Amino acid sequence: MAIITILGAGMMGSALAVPLVDRGHTVRLVGTHLDTEIVERLERDRFHIKLALELPSAIEPFHYTELADATRGATALALGVSSAGIAWACEQLSPYLWPGAPLFMITKGLELGADPSGASRLVTLPDAVKARLPAELRASIHPAAVAGPCIAGELARRVPTCVVLAGRDRPTLEAITALLDQPGYRVVPTTDVVGAEVSAALKNAYAMGIAFGTGMHERAGGVAGSVAFHNLESLVMAESILEMTAIAAALGGSPWTVTGLAGVGDLDVTTNGGRTGRFGKHLGRGLTLPQAIEAMQGATLECLEILAVLRRAFEAGAIPGLALERVPLLEHMIHVALDGAPVDIPISRFFADELQPGARA
Amino acid sequence: MAIITILGAGMMGSALAVPLVDRGHTVRLVGTHLDTEIVERLERDRFHIKLALELPSAIEPFHYTELADATRGATALALGVSSAGIAWACEQLSPYLWPGAPLFMITKGLELGADPSGASRLVTLPDAVKARLPAELRASIHPAAVAGPCIAGELARRVPTCVVLAGRDRPTLEAITALLDQPGYRVVPTTDVVGAEVSAALKNAYAMGIAFGTGMHERAGGVAGSVAFHNLESLVMAESILEMTAIAAALGGSPWTVTGLAGVGDLDVTTNGGRTGRFGKHLGRGLTLPQAIEAMQGATLECLEILAVLRRAFEAGAIPGLALERVPLLEHMIHVALDGAPVDIPISRFFADELQPGARA
Repeated sequence: MAIITILGAGMMGSALAVPLVDRGHTVRLVGTHLDTEIVERLERDRFHIKLALELPSAIEPFHYTELADATRGATALALGVSSAGIAWACEQLSPYLWPGAPLFMITKGLELGADPSGASRLVTLPDAVKARLPAELRASIHPAAVAGPCIAGELARRVPTCVVLAGRDRPTLEAITALLDQPGYRVVPTTDVVGAEVSAALKNAYAMGIAFGTGMHERAGGVAGSVAFHNLESLVMAESILEMTAIAAALGGSPWTVTGLAGVGDLDVTTNGGRTGRFGKHLGRGLTLPQAIEAMQGATLECLEILAVLRRAFEAGAIPGLALERVPLLEHMIHVALDGAPVDIPISRFFADELQPGARA
Repeated sequence: MAIITILGAGMMGSALAVPLVDRGHTVRLVGTHLDTEIVERLERDRFHIKLALELPSAIEPFHYTELADATRGATALALGVSSAGIAWACEQLSPYLWPGAPLFMITKGLELGADPSGASRLVTLPDAVKARLPAELRASIHPAAVAGPCIAGELARRVPTCVVLAGRDRPTLEAITALLDQPGYRVVPTTDVVGAEVSAALKNAYAMGIAFGTGMHERAGGVAGSVAFHNLESLVMAESILEMTAIAAALGGSPWTVTGLAGVGDLDVTTNGGRTGRFGKHLGRGLTLPQAIEAMQGATLECLEILAVLRRAFEAGAIPGLALERVPLLEHMIHVALDGAPVDIPISRFFADELQPGARA
């Protein structure tokens, strides 16, 4: 069996360790400077304070100051830090990488960067990580990213799931898939990095929009039940998938990735299980933006981060051939969540013919 | 404004009357022989006993024995009966049809029929209705069907929704859309009758499968919350969309119809708001098939009807180029819901490469 080192001992990095030890691998879980308390408690009695769960004893906790030991003899490396920690993590890992190292991440997202000519463009995290690798390793290391429905608390409790592993190099994908794939944690490899990362990033924004309806129902005095605002939530979900396929296609991704695990699957799970949905519900109830943020009690709101990136990307022309007004749900969510506009879902502009993938083909 | 006659005063037919009177039309709501009690109460005080709601006074109730009066001068006709009542409804309406009559239905589904050579094939309800029209009217009447997220109790309470109107004749679609379309009830016309009707029929079966996870979570002692079996439910949803696109494509429909309102939208709403979901949850909890049916207290289970039709269709070779074992979730649901097999979701067979629409293209 293999030795796999995970950098980042937060909820998602630690949850990933569970299927890996279940596959029989040696797993070294390395906390960042933000994870000191987590690692100390894991060392004491294996209890993970954020997952609120005792982890399997086969998971070996490390501090990032012990990264040399933690990576010694490793078969593969995983990044389990947040997207904000990617630059730091690449820097930390660099001394311990080797040519062809299988490197994958559970971090997902899009950054606004620049192409060689200086023009703005959206960069997927696997590409952003590659750009931060030591120059001599860039030709042989092909970072891959996990996307798809995967709530950390459920993964750590062995609720079955199925994810996609997106990367540009087929042999690397096969090697990593061989390490991860198992009945309760199916891994489906894909080379459509753009489709997978666009889905993974945008689902946070769109889950907020789907939850507007839940809040509107509460505001109208309704109680949870089979007659609520489900019609509205579901039409917003369908428009979400349409807009996500349009954005993915504009960036060169496949719409089929969006309609699969990475898009439909992850959007659905985020709507049902995530904090983004709670935030959208507060806005739909009529809370002002500051009130809604306050009500989230400091929880990280990825939806705000990705909406800000997307607004800048549209302004900079980094989404070729697609104007923001052609994705009216996204445009409205930007106004609501960044500018504080009231929720007023522009249904009359949804499902435009020219946005249909069939119309583009 | 127009005069629109709806045959069928159950929940869905009656709910449809609400946006129609909101558009300013005269609406005549005609009860079948099963709706006598509903119509009598509507006549008395406008209260609809199944929707548990007072309907707008502009809706005029009729008994089916008064169909001649109810159709006099009508602009368009709507079928609001269940799929089991379609043959009866066509027979009743036939004397009152006229050449080119705009005819649409909220009834959805697939029947197993035969083509002129006698080979089995699946027939969409609009085509089945057309075949039952008087021979001299078949060339000029092009039935259309409504699909998409539309819980009747929400439509009647003016929760906004957006539906597709599927029919083979573009001018008919435009005429009916012009009668229905409004801000709170958006209508998007499509000529992809197969894609829309496959989605509308199959969503009942697949919503059952998605709800298996909810029941498995309960069985494992879990309570509803953000950590449950959402990962499993969402991967099953993604596989559902994949299998539905494969079946639609095999029958000549567009996969994009499945990934839009008719498929993703209606599957999502059925999972969240429908009785099919409750039935799937019972099966996921480990109830036997008879126990699960018993627990539904006589509710109509469309999922059992469509699964039976699909099994016969696969056995008869009516789904060209697609074997049942290539849609493993559907195969499993047939075993569970028709044969009483225990729930054991075959995740390892999901997301097969050759089923991806990209792979078929």
